[in-house]
Amino acid sequence: MITLDFTQRGSLTLSEYLYREVKKKILNGELKGSEKLPSKRGLSVHLGISVITVQNVYERLISEGYIFSREKTGYFVTPDLEIFTKGRPEKSGDPESSSLCYRDKDKQKEKYQEEKEYGDFVNLSDSASGTEKFPFSVWNRIFREVLKTKGEELLKATPSEGIFPLREALSEHLKTFRNIQASPLRIVIGAGSEYLYSLILQLLGREKIFALENPGYLKPGKIFKSLGAECVPVPLDSSGFSLESLKKMPLKKSPDVLHVSPSHHFPTGITMPVKRRNEILRWLEEKKDRWIIEDDYDSEFRFSGKPLEPLQRADASGRVIYLNTFTRTISPSFRISYMVLPESLSRVFKEKLGFYSSTVSAIEQFALSEFISRGFFEKHLIRMKNYYRNLRNELIGKLNNSLLKDKIHIREEDSGIHFIMNLKTDLPEKEFKKRAFEKGLGLSLLSDYVYPETLSPGKTAGLDSFMEQGFVSIVVNYSGLKKNKIEKLVSVLEEVVLDS
Amino acid sequence: MITLDFTQRGSLTLSEYLYREVKKKILNGELKGSEKLPSKRGLSVHLGISVITVQNVYERLISEGYIFSREKTGYFVTPDLEIFTKGRPEKSGDPESSSLCYRDKDKQKEKYQEEKEYGDFVNLSDSASGTEKFPFSVWNRIFREVLKTKGEELLKATPSEGIFPLREALSEHLKTFRNIQASPLRIVIGAGSEYLYSLILQLLGREKIFALENPGYLKPGKIFKSLGAECVPVPLDSSGFSLESLKKMPLKKSPDVLHVSPSHHFPTGITMPVKRRNEILRWLEEKKDRWIIEDDYDSEFRFSGKPLEPLQRADASGRVIYLNTFTRTISPSFRISYMVLPESLSRVFKEKLGFYSSTVSAIEQFALSEFISRGFFEKHLIRMKNYYRNLRNELIGKLNNSLLKDKIHIREEDSGIHFIMNLKTDLPEKEFKKRAFEKGLGLSLLSDYVYPETLSPGKTAGLDSFMEQGFVSIVVNYSGLKKNKIEKLVSVLEEVVLDS
Repeated sequence: MITLDFTQRGSLTLSEYLYREVKKKILNGELKGSEKLPSKRGLSVHLGISVITVQNVYERLISEGYIFSREKTGYFVTPDLEIFTKGRPEKSGDPESSSLCYRDKDKQKEKYQEEKEYGDFVNLSDSASGTEKFPFSVWNRIFREVLKTKGEELLKATPSEGIFPLREALSEHLKTFRNIQASPLRIVIGAGSEYLYSLILQLLGREKIFALENPGYLKPGKIFKSLGAECVPVPLDSSGFSLESLKKMPLKKSPDVLHVSPSHHFPTGITMPVKRRNEILRWLEEKKDRWIIEDDYDSEFRFSGKPLEPLQRADASGRVIYLNTFTRTISPSFRISYMVLPESLSRVFKEKLGFYSSTVSAIEQFALSEFISRGFFEKHLIRMKNYYRNLRNELIGKLNNSLLKDKIHIREEDSGIHFIMNLKTDLPEKEFKKRAFEKGLGLSLLSDYVYPETLSPGKTAGLDSFMEQGFVSIVVNYSGLKKNKIEKLVSVLEEVVLDS
Repeated sequence: MITLDFTQRGSLTLSEYLYREVKKKILNGELKGSEKLPSKRGLSVHLGISVITVQNVYERLISEGYIFSREKTGYFVTPDLEIFTKGRPEKSGDPESSSLCYRDKDKQKEKYQEEKEYGDFVNLSDSASGTEKFPFSVWNRIFREVLKTKGEELLKATPSEGIFPLREALSEHLKTFRNIQASPLRIVIGAGSEYLYSLILQLLGREKIFALENPGYLKPGKIFKSLGAECVPVPLDSSGFSLESLKKMPLKKSPDVLHVSPSHHFPTGITMPVKRRNEILRWLEEKKDRWIIEDDYDSEFRFSGKPLEPLQRADASGRVIYLNTFTRTISPSFRISYMVLPESLSRVFKEKLGFYSSTVSAIEQFALSEFISRGFFEKHLIRMKNYYRNLRNELIGKLNNSLLKDKIHIREEDSGIHFIMNLKTDLPEKEFKKRAFEKGLGLSLLSDYVYPETLSPGKTAGLDSFMEQGFVSIVVNYSGLKKNKIEKLVSVLEEVVLDS
């Protein structure tokens, strides 16, 4: 029978405590795969808590795939509890997922994150931010000040585009850091880039065809599709989005909108060279009603050299939508992104979508506005940049001094908080990932960021420029990596490669 | 020339201060309609601030309709600065709006709210919450605690549906207050009901036809349309949503989804009687793949009698989606709503939409979870209920003791934070509204909440049960009304009615 010391539960609810403890016992092997769990009633009597509480916990564990129920027999621990990790969990129709009992991908992700707390699992597959450096005390102070000084102002509905002071602060920030002249009146704030993508779709129209980087950050495509638009994944070449590839594709209609991240492509790390930028801008000007969505999501983290100016800056046609987010620079749990609309779309936004309420709470808008305009954001960026640079150097240094030094090719692009590492091995990549996972290392593969419909056996559409024969291509999201886990990371990779 | 005392600007930015001061001068008549404003350069030199700052302020004032520019001539105050107010600014194609120079409806709303601060404008047209009673100190404390105790947990991406403790707190709350059994696993949290509507549309499919209450809260219709679905506004009768009316409509295809607010319809205040509820549930069961969206948005504010149970509770088919929000009970600027999905949709959500990130920041989710589970929300509701009951009684009392006492019919429904007042007058309703506005009283008319496409001259589709010949029907949103403004409100109404 499961025994728990409820005096240890601190401020947790009974149900949360029970949930965590049972999960911990499953993860640390105390409860084994296929083992029968106590009945709801039995556990409830044993622990002196209500049956409902036990039932809620069991339901939650079922939905997360830790346990399963068999009719009239009882509850059991899921056997072969193997989870293959993916950073941004965006692959639909992923052949792997059907073999898992997790119907809920987000739960799966949540599970992962919690898992890191238990045991010493190292996760390179998500882009958490470096929590050690988060300016808690500044946020504490700002929140307190905002609550105190803004008073009733915090209770008023904010305008659809966000409060003016925040848009003004962003306008200033863009001027200073990205050389973008964006009137606050053209800036729209929303609860994450995903929400902004849905606004963009409504602005441009569902009948538009969206061309997307492949491999790439798969979410925009999922969102545009889920909202009814047609999407065309376009293979990259070594300069990034390739109009050449696009032209060669057998399409009935050519795309109207390109989604690109020229400053730093995820996951390849490509910075689009000027020549390619010009080609893309020429494409834009060729026809009316063509648009570019420029995702500038981690341009803040460039480690050497001057960053290239955004496309938005060079655009003469007024048809580039610039998008950026605070989920990378502040934290993934902080749901604020923004976009700069071209003049013409800004007008359409006000007419067609101005009825929407802002999706960001007033208090967070005021707090962020203070954080930026008083210079804390700039300081934070500088700190994070140094932190990430050191972390990256240490990680790469250790890899280059490891037993794998002759088997590693790192594609380093001097920017961003991820890089691609090609690792020489005879193992098929899925097997590689599985073995690493079993040893406590979660990895993302480059192929995890390819649109599944473009993947065919033996073919690696658009990946030729990045992959090497006889190597696995790993996307190393090191931002959430703790320094004391680097050794473990290196030794797991050594074991997997050298034992095979 | 405009003179300003910059030592008075406190913590405001130069631009914000200049903006507010110029606006104040326009609103209080110091700057008159058609009056020429100083040139950008002139004002910049005069005040010793940069031209860019002045330009930003002028641009903002233009976009909000306070001033306009004439090429090569300069900037002028907008003449005849009359704004007709609408609470929830949701009418598209409103014939009034073209006569205004405000291209931006949200700005217009923002303007309104700010206007209330200047002068003694009384606004009955929006549903602000009673700010006097907002529990600032509790929120202060909770935010501080959450920041302190949750630490790194606040930096992790939260699951798509929201953090579990908040969903658990909501589940408990629903059980206690609405007698709803909703497993936390079926609850989805989002940044406002508008966002949840977009998720619902993606869940049910764009090809569905949505039947909407007419008159009603117009936003769901705007959102479904904006996302590409067909919408059918259905006239109400005195029991609310009328299947009878729906049957009589010449439609090619019958609707698949009903959006209803049986607990308290906005703006008519109808509580749907049991008989009608049963009819609607029967409609639901007649065919597969029919759905009901139940908006329970202000069921918390029932002043007498036991509230009727939600449809969701009586639904045997498992096809009612229950929706509620904190924008009414806490504040419009607080962007958290939630829905309870039926089991079947909950599964679809996880499969199809589980890739979405949550739109609510972790800190707000944790704070709200504490606010509810520690009983503060319940206390807050009791306080607000008393506050609104007193406010409503005082308001109705003063109206019934005014010179208008024989000209007023109040439709009171013992619940919610609005009611309908029919007022006897020979004035056409738009003229009535205009005159009230000129005297400093912003009003919403019942007809403002009718789908514009169903309005035809001389016809009041679906309003027959609520309007009376020779009366104007006013929707009184009294929640944001300050007690010391009641006298003014009554006297403006007296003047408008008796002077005509």
